[in-house]
Amino acid sequence: MKPGRKIAVSESSMTGLPPGTLIHVGDRDPAPTHVRYFEYNENTTTEKSPAHPDELSPDTDTYTWIKVSGLADIEKIKQIGAFLSLHPLTLEDILNTNQRPKYEEFDDYLYLVLKIIRVENGGEASGGGRRADDNIDIPGIRPENDRQSDDNCNLISAQLSIILTERGVCSFEENESDIFNGVIKRLSDEKSRIRKRGPDYLMYVLTDCVVDNYFIVFERIGEEIEDLEEVIIDGTDADVMEDIYTLKRNLFDIRKRIWPLRETIAGLIRNKPDFVSEQTEVFLNDVSDHLYQLNDILESYREMSTGLYEIHLSTLSNRMNEVMKVLTIIATIFIPLTFIAGIYGMNFASMPELQWDLGYPAAILAMLVTAGIMLLYFRKKHWI
Amino acid sequence: MKPGRKIAVSESSMTGLPPGTLIHVGDRDPAPTHVRYFEYNENTTTEKSPAHPDELSPDTDTYTWIKVSGLADIEKIKQIGAFLSLHPLTLEDILNTNQRPKYEEFDDYLYLVLKIIRVENGGEASGGGRRADDNIDIPGIRPENDRQSDDNCNLISAQLSIILTERGVCSFEENESDIFNGVIKRLSDEKSRIRKRGPDYLMYVLTDCVVDNYFIVFERIGEEIEDLEEVIIDGTDADVMEDIYTLKRNLFDIRKRIWPLRETIAGLIRNKPDFVSEQTEVFLNDVSDHLYQLNDILESYREMSTGLYEIHLSTLSNRMNEVMKVLTIIATIFIPLTFIAGIYGMNFASMPELQWDLGYPAAILAMLVTAGIMLLYFRKKHWI
Amino acid sequence: MKPGRKIAVSESSMTGLPPGTLIHVGDRDPAPTHVRYFEYNENTTTEKSPAHPDELSPDTDTYTWIKVSGLADIEKIKQIGAFLSLHPLTLEDILNTNQRPKYEEFDDYLYLVLKIIRVENGGEASGGGRRADDNIDIPGIRPENDRQSDDNCNLISAQLSIILTERGVCSFEENESDIFNGVIKRLSDEKSRIRKRGPDYLMYVLTDCVVDNYFIVFERIGEEIEDLEEVIIDGTDADVMEDIYTLKRNLFDIRKRIWPLRETIAGLIRNKPDFVSEQTEVFLNDVSDHLYQLNDILESYREMSTGLYEIHLSTLSNRMNEVMKVLTIIATIFIPLTFIAGIYGMNFASMPELQWDLGYPAAILAMLVTAGIMLLYFRKKHWI
Amino acid sequence: MKPGRKIAVSESSMTGLPPGTLIHVGDRDPAPTHVRYFEYNENTTTEKSPAHPDELSPDTDTYTWIKVSGLADIEKIKQIGAFLSLHPLTLEDILNTNQRPKYEEFDDYLYLVLKIIRVENGGEASGGGRRADDNIDIPGIRPENDRQSDDNCNLISAQLSIILTERGVCSFEENESDIFNGVIKRLSDEKSRIRKRGPDYLMYVLTDCVVDNYFIVFERIGEEIEDLEEVIIDGTDADVMEDIYTLKRNLFDIRKRIWPLRETIAGLIRNKPDFVSEQTEVFLNDVSDHLYQLNDILESYREMSTGLYEIHLSTLSNRMNEVMKVLTIIATIFIPLTFIAGIYGMNFASMPELQWDLGYPAAILAMLVTAGIMLLYFRKKHWI
Amino acid sequence: MKPGRKIAVSESSMTGLPPGTLIHVGDRDPAPTHVRYFEYNENTTTEKSPAHPDELSPDTDTYTWIKVSGLADIEKIKQIGAFLSLHPLTLEDILNTNQRPKYEEFDDYLYLVLKIIRVENGGEASGGGRRADDNIDIPGIRPENDRQSDDNCNLISAQLSIILTERGVCSFEENESDIFNGVIKRLSDEKSRIRKRGPDYLMYVLTDCVVDNYFIVFERIGEEIEDLEEVIIDGTDADVMEDIYTLKRNLFDIRKRIWPLRETIAGLIRNKPDFVSEQTEVFLNDVSDHLYQLNDILESYREMSTGLYEIHLSTLSNRMNEVMKVLTIIATIFIPLTFIAGIYGMNFASMPELQWDLGYPAAILAMLVTAGIMLLYFRKKHWI
Repeated sequence: MKPGRKIAVSESSMTGLPPGTLIHVGDRDPAPTHVRYFEYNENTTTEKSPAHPDELSPDTDTYTWIKVSGLADIEKIKQIGAFLSLHPLTLEDILNTNQRPKYEEFDDYLYLVLKIIRVENGGEASGGGRRADDNIDIPGIRPENDRQSDDNCNLISAQLSIILTERGVCSFEENESDIFNGVIKRLSDEKSRIRKRGPDYLMYVLTDCVVDNYFIVFERIGEEIEDLEEVIIDGTDADVMEDIYTLKRNLFDIRKRIWPLRETIAGLIRNKPDFVSEQTEVFLNDVSDHLYQLNDILESYREMSTGLYEIHLSTLSNRMNEVMKVLTIIATIFIPLTFIAGIYGMNFASMPELQWDLGYPAAILAMLVTAGIMLLYFRKKHWI
Repeated sequence: MKPGRKIAVSESSMTGLPPGTLIHVGDRDPAPTHVRYFEYNENTTTEKSPAHPDELSPDTDTYTWIKVSGLADIEKIKQIGAFLSLHPLTLEDILNTNQRPKYEEFDDYLYLVLKIIRVENGGEASGGGRRADDNIDIPGIRPENDRQSDDNCNLISAQLSIILTERGVCSFEENESDIFNGVIKRLSDEKSRIRKRGPDYLMYVLTDCVVDNYFIVFERIGEEIEDLEEVIIDGTDADVMEDIYTLKRNLFDIRKRIWPLRETIAGLIRNKPDFVSEQTEVFLNDVSDHLYQLNDILESYREMSTGLYEIHLSTLSNRMNEVMKVLTIIATIFIPLTFIAGIYGMNFASMPELQWDLGYPAAILAMLVTAGIMLLYFRKKHWI
Repeated sequence: MKPGRKIAVSESSMTGLPPGTLIHVGDRDPAPTHVRYFEYNENTTTEKSPAHPDELSPDTDTYTWIKVSGLADIEKIKQIGAFLSLHPLTLEDILNTNQRPKYEEFDDYLYLVLKIIRVENGGEASGGGRRADDNIDIPGIRPENDRQSDDNCNLISAQLSIILTERGVCSFEENESDIFNGVIKRLSDEKSRIRKRGPDYLMYVLTDCVVDNYFIVFERIGEEIEDLEEVIIDGTDADVMEDIYTLKRNLFDIRKRIWPLRETIAGLIRNKPDFVSEQTEVFLNDVSDHLYQLNDILESYREMSTGLYEIHLSTLSNRMNEVMKVLTIIATIFIPLTFIAGIYGMNFASMPELQWDLGYPAAILAMLVTAGIMLLYFRKKHWI
Repeated sequence: MKPGRKIAVSESSMTGLPPGTLIHVGDRDPAPTHVRYFEYNENTTTEKSPAHPDELSPDTDTYTWIKVSGLADIEKIKQIGAFLSLHPLTLEDILNTNQRPKYEEFDDYLYLVLKIIRVENGGEASGGGRRADDNIDIPGIRPENDRQSDDNCNLISAQLSIILTERGVCSFEENESDIFNGVIKRLSDEKSRIRKRGPDYLMYVLTDCVVDNYFIVFERIGEEIEDLEEVIIDGTDADVMEDIYTLKRNLFDIRKRIWPLRETIAGLIRNKPDFVSEQTEVFLNDVSDHLYQLNDILESYREMSTGLYEIHLSTLSNRMNEVMKVLTIIATIFIPLTFIAGIYGMNFASMPELQWDLGYPAAILAMLVTAGIMLLYFRKKHWI
Repeated sequence: MKPGRKIAVSESSMTGLPPGTLIHVGDRDPAPTHVRYFEYNENTTTEKSPAHPDELSPDTDTYTWIKVSGLADIEKIKQIGAFLSLHPLTLEDILNTNQRPKYEEFDDYLYLVLKIIRVENGGEASGGGRRADDNIDIPGIRPENDRQSDDNCNLISAQLSIILTERGVCSFEENESDIFNGVIKRLSDEKSRIRKRGPDYLMYVLTDCVVDNYFIVFERIGEEIEDLEEVIIDGTDADVMEDIYTLKRNLFDIRKRIWPLRETIAGLIRNKPDFVSEQTEVFLNDVSDHLYQLNDILESYREMSTGLYEIHLSTLSNRMNEVMKVLTIIATIFIPLTFIAGIYGMNFASMPELQWDLGYPAAILAMLVTAGIMLLYFRKKHWI
């Protein structure tokens, strides 16, 4: 089965099961859970590894970033939920990876759901050409993904839930990824703005990371469109329709994830929740700008994919025309000639031409003239 | 006749018949009426079977759920309507199974109309792979449905009317179904939230059941799209257009039922009717989320069905191309050869070649060379 | 000329003619005018036949329904206009049968324009299967309609203007129809709600009649779509495109009449004009519901007509494929055989095979083997 | 070059030229300027011919209509502009014939821009069948129009600027036309409402003239669609696509002119400018109604043109099918027969059949039977 | 790679790089930076060339226009940014040439982003036919553009950032262009309105320049559409689909730049920022009008490009039809004739016709008659 086509059956809210039971819901098996704890303030950043979140220092002069990846260990996630006093419904939503992007404001925290989209390319990560100090490394197929890898680029979307409290940020990724490595590095940088500002700025940085990652995905799709374009104009590949179809579906899948995100960010800016400072709102505006830009590109990709289909159809017709022309030229040239040969192959007792000395050369000449006239006609028609 | 295509002629309001006369209106004959009475509060749940609703205990410390299925027994339904003091227009609407999803607020009750959609698959129920404790059992063709069962999945929609009063809920299903068995089971569970909260929560649970059921329907359609995709790309089935057409119509039928439901639920949340507590509104928000998610899936299915049509058209063209190529290759190779044979079949008295000793092998050679040139030409054109 | 295609040239307001001159405007010659006068109150209903509307009883305890059909007799209509003190512009609008559905509020009356749509089917009325007591009889082609009747269903739209005053209703139909016979019958029924309520309720009943009639039209179109579907899938009728085209145009014509009506009714409900009681507004809401339902059906019909076109195109391609296959199979089997025959028809002096005893059977065998290989190839390709 | 395709390069505001320089801007050379002065009040109408507008009587009991046609004489137009104290920007707009329909309110006057659309038909005016007293005469190609006249109907649009002041109306037509002859005639009629009401009514009458003229254009396009329909269904004309394309472009051009006009008139009604009395607003509502009606017709024309394209495509496919069938029938009947003849044309020494007495008739019979079987097969396939 | 397809990867905000680092972002290498300084007031205009912007005269009675083109010299741009006290985010935006058109209001200045679009045509600038005194010179390919020049017109978009302060305007062009030469000339003209009004008027003039330039681009595209139309109707070019595809993409690219600009200008007018006087707002209204006009043209171009595709498809079908007809006519005429010749080429011992004296002429006659009948049949079918 190809990705993006399976329907999200929200089992936790399935008929018969009371809402509120905590189980993982999603298309894939949950990835093993890894938790990293960061404490930072303007002066220092330390990574801790407490056995339990409650062991984290209760200092109010540091901010905390709990970075959870993989949702398999429900107990661990419950612990963190308890530590952050999350509402049961929020915990359910974190574990259900079929959420639409949205944000919800609670008394103690802000809950934001995003979708990380990555391109997976036959077992190899894309984005290899990125600058080294970016530390971007778009990972290939995880073992837990049972997807077959073929030549096309497959889009894999993973859910990212962000909890923003007064004292820190907690991020839940659906599976381990290197997308936030750059953030971790900047966090350890003394002059980094992340350390100077509050957790709302960290939330913005994570969101920005996700949105910037979309640009990489788009770049990859753009390359694929160019490849497709060449193949289609060459007209050598008969299975090109499947690629166009896959492209269209990928674009639709992305739109499904970007559109609600746009509304989500716009809502965040408009509603000015308590946990987001005005300074950070300015930066969120920037994210919003990027999302509009992405949407423009998306729309132009969709137009292009329609255009590719039209070129393909037209190429098919052209090729048929060419095949027909070859047949027609050969057939219409030789059929009359064969007819002339047939006439003089008849066995009538009295066929005077057959006895002429120049009969044979004359017949050959007649054939050449006929063929010549045909060729001139076809040239006039611009067929040859 | 196939389902979903017959027009709802609202006969009760037909010209000549005064509005207000109670008759059943719908595409099918009404199913026989079964009524079950449940009384529940935080401590206990009992199913009663009174001869008349008035015999129900007038206790104000229990809530009542009257579960009516099948609308054939108009007298019974009138009794229940009288017991709940329903407005005549509401009773008419309950009996007319061609309603759009909507809700109406009255002084004493809230009236909500939904559509249950089920997939019917050649006499067998779908959804067989569900977990057993879900007790979901999507029933096959009822005897009263005169629909022919074929390979395609037919969608059957049944109307569900919910009356929410201060003291209970009354649900009218168009025909018997097992969709609410899970709810009945949870009702008999002591720790169930249904028993702790009021009838508005029960209304939400029923609505949630209906909406969750849509996901099953969508899953089934998704499978069918994948099947169609394979058949189309194989290109072996010529009748695939009918399947695409049926798919499109099914998607349109579903949209016709989900779109107004979305507005209905949004209206319920926005207008905050008296009978719905704030707590329940939060849950309705969840239903609303699900409906948006369904809508996203629906749109992507619609795009896919268009894509399938395009693949189909392109496959047809490809196949035509292939047929033409075979014809062209065979014809253009042999026509010149036959012409050469024809020439030496002529009966001219003086054809020197005929007398040559090597005339025959030379002619055969000329034919082989001609054929070879043709084959090279076709290879250059990538036709073979 | 086919119906619905002629443009309404509003001649009364034509350049050069001052606005306000009363002449009939429309695509057809006006039908002869028939006027019926009904006086009714809660106790009694009488039909009168005064020579002049002024002779109507000036009693204020009865309501009047003046039912005008046919707009040929402009003098008569002027009389009635004077009796009801209609504004000159209203009279003009009544006589101009190219109005869009709309309503206008004046000091003394409310003016409402609707479109009655009927299906005309080769000289016979549709709707024959209706219950007898409905008295619905959709009349065939009137002599004044110069339309040719063919197999398709033609839609005929007639304008209905309703004047609602404090003391009664006056309806102007473009031509005589039986659509209101049921209303007349109910008016003579003692227990009828029409008699108990004011003229605004009568206006609602007339409007409801018109809208219910649309359902009959839709049912007829639905049947036609099913017929078309069969014809298209059979693929035997080459002129099917014209039928699809006519279907699409009919759907568009209906939409042109239903969409503004929806807005009109919504406006009536929203603006709460003086002449319409709150009780009647509830009923108008019901009409509005029906119009939404009609719109849903209309949209699904439009989608279906597009689907039918796609099936048709695909069927054409399929048929071409089949034709090509037959040609290709026959040609590619026999062309090589004929070539073999041609070879042994050559007259070379020394062709050893010709002298072999088994030469002839061997040649026949070679032909059979060649044909067999071809047939196997085609079977492998699933062409035969 | 065909009309409506050249882009309006607004040269006066071209880079480098300061705004405010008065030059004519447009696709065509400006037509020579003719000015007519009318003074009218309730009692009398006189046409004057002053050398300069300042010579017009300064009476305040008459209204003035300055009717300018042709924009070549910029000096004259400046004079009139000065006489009416027009803002320089307004004068620029009058001379730039690439405006969108709009209105602008100034302190002393109201400025309204409209588009007159006329149909030009191979050198002859359309609308010939109109009643004589209408005095409508849609003029043919003016010498200054360098457009080639062909069979298609060309749409020519001319700009009309109307200046409404307290004391009169000034209309600037892009070129001389007879469209307002009816207005001039009515102005000289004693009982005409134009004379009784102020200049705002005259403005309405001119606007109404323009809008009514659209109906004539639409009628002409409607006829052309019917002609196209016949040609397409006949399928005899291969160039029909160009006509469909021209039709679509014409419809788009008209829409470009009608849509902003609708907004303009709606704005006029909504904003209630000082120069327009409430009485006239009622009449403008009528114009607005007409524009909505035109829009409905336009939309249905657009749908029809799409439908025509679909019929055309389907006709092409049908014709190809027919051609292929003829080829296939002839080829598949004669190819086997020729093969049989070929066999007995072979020169094998021992072919027993050749010596049989009935060999020849038997071969002929075999051919007839083969042909018969083929014909039966084709009949079964419904090809013949 | 073709233009407009590469995705803007906003590297400065790339994961890992902290926002706020000033680097150039864009599809192309930045062009070398040229700065020109103009000081002007009502009496005089002087161009200065200070080494540093701080050396500019601090006179408050002159306005300053700093015209920067090329964004390579980041240090220089930082200097100017410091001189104007620009916010770091604004500087970032100026250097990132992938912005959408937008405006932002800051305390000290207004920031406006526009897109200049130019047509590049095989190494030569378009717009050559413009009047000389316009000084418009649309430059060809700059060396820094690595785009291959072919026959199609390539659209090149360059970003223009305008900073409007109380005392002047600063414009940042992505690369050197002559688009503002006319403005510089007018600035040196004593009577120019630019000198009389403040910097907001200069901002309007620059914006107007950019928008007017769009008209030139549109004119060029219009010409290309006409060329395409001819090529398509001729049907001689098989690669026409690529041109249609490029056209569509170009139109989409332009729309992407014009649509947000429309909103931007509308926002400027609506929000009445401090730096824009009311007088200038009137002129901005004019720009807004032009943008609406451009949008209308754009939409009609898009419709035309769809129409061109339809013509192309139909032309392809027509041509195939023609090819098939030629094949069919030749084949169906000669196949029966060859069959007759084949019959009399058979070697049966007893074929009486062969011995007839007139056997040969009779056979020839039979062939002629057969051919004649075929020809008549084809004429009846209108194939020849």
